[in-house]
Amino acid sequence: MRPFIHDAFLLASDVARDLYERYARDLPIVDYHCHLSPELMAADHRFRGITEIWLEGDHYKWRAMRACGVPERFISGDASDWEKFEAWARTVPETLRNPLFHWTAMELKRPFGIDRLLSPQTAREIFDRCNERLRGEDDFTAMGLLRSWKVAVVCSTDDPVDSLESHRQLARRKDPATRVYPTWRPDAALTFDEPTVWNAWVGKLEKAANRTVRSFEDLVEALDARHRVFHEHGCRASDHGLETLPPPSVYADGTVGVTFDALRAGRAIERGRAVALQAALLHRLALMDHDRGWVQQFHLGAYRDVSSRLYAKLGPNVGGDSMGDFEMARGLAAFLDGLDRRASLAKTILYNLNPRDNALFATMAGNFNDGSVPGKMQYGASWWFLDQKDGIEAQFRALSNMGLVSRFVGMITDSRSFLSYSRHDYFRRILCNLLGEDVRQGLVPDDREQLGRLVTAVCFTNARDYFGFPLGTAAAGQETR
Amino acid sequence: MRPFIHDAFLLASDVARDLYERYARDLPIVDYHCHLSPELMAADHRFRGITEIWLEGDHYKWRAMRACGVPERFISGDASDWEKFEAWARTVPETLRNPLFHWTAMELKRPFGIDRLLSPQTAREIFDRCNERLRGEDDFTAMGLLRSWKVAVVCSTDDPVDSLESHRQLARRKDPATRVYPTWRPDAALTFDEPTVWNAWVGKLEKAANRTVRSFEDLVEALDARHRVFHEHGCRASDHGLETLPPPSVYADGTVGVTFDALRAGRAIERGRAVALQAALLHRLALMDHDRGWVQQFHLGAYRDVSSRLYAKLGPNVGGDSMGDFEMARGLAAFLDGLDRRASLAKTILYNLNPRDNALFATMAGNFNDGSVPGKMQYGASWWFLDQKDGIEAQFRALSNMGLVSRFVGMITDSRSFLSYSRHDYFRRILCNLLGEDVRQGLVPDDREQLGRLVTAVCFTNARDYFGFPLGTAAAGQETR
Amino acid sequence: MRPFIHDAFLLASDVARDLYERYARDLPIVDYHCHLSPELMAADHRFRGITEIWLEGDHYKWRAMRACGVPERFISGDASDWEKFEAWARTVPETLRNPLFHWTAMELKRPFGIDRLLSPQTAREIFDRCNERLRGEDDFTAMGLLRSWKVAVVCSTDDPVDSLESHRQLARRKDPATRVYPTWRPDAALTFDEPTVWNAWVGKLEKAANRTVRSFEDLVEALDARHRVFHEHGCRASDHGLETLPPPSVYADGTVGVTFDALRAGRAIERGRAVALQAALLHRLALMDHDRGWVQQFHLGAYRDVSSRLYAKLGPNVGGDSMGDFEMARGLAAFLDGLDRRASLAKTILYNLNPRDNALFATMAGNFNDGSVPGKMQYGASWWFLDQKDGIEAQFRALSNMGLVSRFVGMITDSRSFLSYSRHDYFRRILCNLLGEDVRQGLVPDDREQLGRLVTAVCFTNARDYFGFPLGTAAAGQETR
Repeated sequence: MRPFIHDAFLLASDVARDLYERYARDLPIVDYHCHLSPELMAADHRFRGITEIWLEGDHYKWRAMRACGVPERFISGDASDWEKFEAWARTVPETLRNPLFHWTAMELKRPFGIDRLLSPQTAREIFDRCNERLRGEDDFTAMGLLRSWKVAVVCSTDDPVDSLESHRQLARRKDPATRVYPTWRPDAALTFDEPTVWNAWVGKLEKAANRTVRSFEDLVEALDARHRVFHEHGCRASDHGLETLPPPSVYADGTVGVTFDALRAGRAIERGRAVALQAALLHRLALMDHDRGWVQQFHLGAYRDVSSRLYAKLGPNVGGDSMGDFEMARGLAAFLDGLDRRASLAKTILYNLNPRDNALFATMAGNFNDGSVPGKMQYGASWWFLDQKDGIEAQFRALSNMGLVSRFVGMITDSRSFLSYSRHDYFRRILCNLLGEDVRQGLVPDDREQLGRLVTAVCFTNARDYFGFPLGTAAAGQETR
Repeated sequence: MRPFIHDAFLLASDVARDLYERYARDLPIVDYHCHLSPELMAADHRFRGITEIWLEGDHYKWRAMRACGVPERFISGDASDWEKFEAWARTVPETLRNPLFHWTAMELKRPFGIDRLLSPQTAREIFDRCNERLRGEDDFTAMGLLRSWKVAVVCSTDDPVDSLESHRQLARRKDPATRVYPTWRPDAALTFDEPTVWNAWVGKLEKAANRTVRSFEDLVEALDARHRVFHEHGCRASDHGLETLPPPSVYADGTVGVTFDALRAGRAIERGRAVALQAALLHRLALMDHDRGWVQQFHLGAYRDVSSRLYAKLGPNVGGDSMGDFEMARGLAAFLDGLDRRASLAKTILYNLNPRDNALFATMAGNFNDGSVPGKMQYGASWWFLDQKDGIEAQFRALSNMGLVSRFVGMITDSRSFLSYSRHDYFRRILCNLLGEDVRQGLVPDDREQLGRLVTAVCFTNARDYFGFPLGTAAAGQETR
Repeated sequence: MRPFIHDAFLLASDVARDLYERYARDLPIVDYHCHLSPELMAADHRFRGITEIWLEGDHYKWRAMRACGVPERFISGDASDWEKFEAWARTVPETLRNPLFHWTAMELKRPFGIDRLLSPQTAREIFDRCNERLRGEDDFTAMGLLRSWKVAVVCSTDDPVDSLESHRQLARRKDPATRVYPTWRPDAALTFDEPTVWNAWVGKLEKAANRTVRSFEDLVEALDARHRVFHEHGCRASDHGLETLPPPSVYADGTVGVTFDALRAGRAIERGRAVALQAALLHRLALMDHDRGWVQQFHLGAYRDVSSRLYAKLGPNVGGDSMGDFEMARGLAAFLDGLDRRASLAKTILYNLNPRDNALFATMAGNFNDGSVPGKMQYGASWWFLDQKDGIEAQFRALSNMGLVSRFVGMITDSRSFLSYSRHDYFRRILCNLLGEDVRQGLVPDDREQLGRLVTAVCFTNARDYFGFPLGTAAAGQETR
């Protein structure tokens, strides 16, 4: 019997299979946004087993287990590796129709070569086989996994105060298969809820930038100094995780200096003033991105740490986050237009989390293309809760209808796991299948060369050219000419 | 020629037909949320004809007739039963693609055994045939209809001040096919727009609970006394119909006592204070639900009584309601987290009306699963305007992608009509068809036993186990073990 | 090889092809909302070439070109006709999956008879061929194009201060193929951002209406005088382009007189007062529409002139607009209910731009049907960013599920281009294809006559009867009986 994950998985038509096999399947990967650990990459970490690499910190799986009534001990607690794996194996058959079901089967198939579906019956055998490969084979270390997936570039996500030591180590490698770059993610600079936390962070920034921060302009300068250091380490992209962008009204606010002083003195600031300060700082950070030719990314719409019970017990990113219904249009417009009208708008990728905003984001991005760079303004890939077949198709449809998919820079893993690269394969299959279906319906001409160009562009070359990173040897022969 | 409603209606594949026939079709029904009249059930009402059972109070049909230019006299006015039926028969062919077209054909097919489609040409024949059966046959009384649909449980929707006399009568039946339980719906306690109306209701509560309500705590105690009585009558679920849940800011409000006093004294209260009082009362009601192990339900997003002309003429629930675009995330989070962090969150079902919020609701529910009960937090079934094929599929897709359908407690009728049980059949066909399509596309393994388990769980056993009601003999042999 | 646009384009089933060929294809067009120039129609303008008729002012194409990195000179600048056409030809292959790809191919096919797809390779040949036909053939003037598309009625979009001179010229034609009527679009009366601009417009109104405007009531009277003149010119519809309708709170506002005086004196007015004035004026304009038996249209949800760079350089409607996420429900309800409860609600079409509001709009319209006119309250066709296969299908699905498509008045071009009539053909194919798919799935009976009636109603007769315009001879034999 054919295994569940087979060559034609998700590829319903001949055209789809042809596009996948001839164009998509073997392309290198430019993973321009993820949360992999630079430390583990620098150390070329060898995992102690499948539980470490697969279950630790995977809040997707944690949510599913909690929904199945699995006690927390087997999720984030002190149960053994086998106990946790077994609890997950019991959960997997219950995830039918959730992306976890596909991801699980795809990740066992590749890299582990396991065709059987995970369930209580197969758990022990799969646990042992995965552990054996993880503990013994060259392709199963952190960098080995990336190499075998032909990942030419990985961009981690880094705090401006990070020393970038791991990145320096990684940069010293000669002709690596996978080049690793930092991404500038200054969320901590923009989070004013707890003045103590913020001031502690500013203290670290002072050390990292080797300057004193007494005023708003000092802060901007210190950040700019670190921004330059990031640039020197190959960083070409920033990223922000925000609920929404500040509304137009706060940009004209004259309170920034006073608010900064209060905050720096450790005093709580009221919400309206905090937003005005955030707006001012976001604008200045965006100018830096523009000055250095970077891409700025905005991940908007997540409503984080909604479960205070989980947050108190386990911290952030543990499965207590969901979608918000924040107002989006006016803030996006004010922010982007404020830069565009000063000819200071960097290349930009806008990612939304609540799918009700797909069309809005797609059309908003289109307002600010200026003819300077093809695809300058990007409506970004589906992520987090939207990272499944329906979500990927919905993003692609919205972008198709309201923008140009031919300029789309494609998929990101946005993952903390070294096993998530099958999501690129997932995306490529879904994309080829969609185009095959288009041909079947007569919606696009069956011009295989044109479709192949589109597939290649979306899966690899657009991202390569948009960011302009030097690539690792995993993409040998496919550099920008 | 094959009739429009036939065995394979909506079942496009062999897999779909197999799942439906072997697993779904003959399952009993647990209708854990509807608006059937306990009085009619207790009296085992015999209907005077098809117009009474089918058209009276059916605001779905009323809206369609108004959209077709039918004068109000033939809708809610003093036209004869035949005249009203004939006006509806003229409207039916115009409802093509609206769920009314399917519902109409399905309800004539079962229980009436009529294959012909309703139209002006067939109206007289169908009117006479239906009336004949309704007036003469055992299976066509209120309880006969439920029995023949294998409805093992019906939960009506009841006011806390209701005497529950009908429920007591119903409970006295020996080994009934269909057990009937009340649902606690305290909307009247939470509606402060008209102080006179609210105080009149509190007066009834005082009588029902046999205590005086002079303070907010008195109110809570009186409600709790009734809550206990409902529990003794087999009630295991509450339900709230609200636009949205109160925003986080109002929970810390210290004004509740003062607001209560003003309201109790018959004075109008301003909107902000009303919401704070509502928040406080909702929280206390939720604690009662948790204490007694109930399921709390929230039907959110309806924008009611939008047409003041219709409201003035006919009252509520007459076809002048639509969807709102209320802010949802912050209120839901504040309410649920406020309970969860005190370990006082009851099993909960969240229903949304505006489909733009599907994904938000699905992810919000997932934040508060705690491993205690499988499927503790439910993203509820599509209802009202969403109760059609597209809406059912969209809810199921959102839940699949962002939660676990394997834990879904399934469909509700949410209807005022004894003829609406075909909506369970409708749901089951749509579900089996979806899974058949999944198999065709290779999205799920063709493991018929696993799929059959899923179908059985969603259509019957999950609801049975989640609520834990004793079942009527319509479900003989299928009690929870 | 079959050309991309062929007889069965978009028609996937035999039923679809049958419905299209027998019912849809040859129906006349009632284009009750577009932005064609009355001047060009009155002059029966002959275009200097394909660049003038196809690229000038087409902000859909402009956005696509900017997204492809085409410099502004080739878009809105001083490049030659050939240079601009060639820049567009380079862009077309990059629009795959965007409606522009279909529109481009369809518009070359008809009226130009060109089967080859536009690309850099075919650009010169197509440029020359189109220019030849445009410059020499009778069917390629402004009115020739309308006639050959069987456009029986065109409604342009006109300012209340417009002299309607072109409309008078057009009305003088004997038995024209295409009758042309004005539409009343008083946006300028309702836009208070810049008091100077508003007062200048009021000055023009004073001249046009030949009365002095010193008070709010004067303004209403002057508008009413023009409304009557529009009526005398055959106008039967108004139209408003607004972000959203004013919220309920502002209707009870007593500030209208004072606000008017301040504005008329050239003073800036604050946002809350402006909205109250707008609400008052909208209400009065709606009464005029009701008094004269017109249809009022509301195009809501566009977020215009978001790019201030483009606005400053090129003015409005140049590709710097997107969707907003404005609150919709309360404003719609307050406005419509305020008229309905006074028995003064005109026939109304509500168009939304952000597709997240599809369901809301469909249900909101349904609240106010009163049985007086079939389909009195319309949830309008998809437009602008939603005018593609997915958008058309989504609007039709929402309307089907929550209203009656049998009463739908169908498609509009909403275009500035004399080549956009293929969008009616596009719509008709999509509609027939959808119904064919319904039959295939058993969702509707395969009653070809009933389906044909639906197609005919939606594509032509509903609009004809709803507006009641005298038709041009393009619809000879198909007048309302």
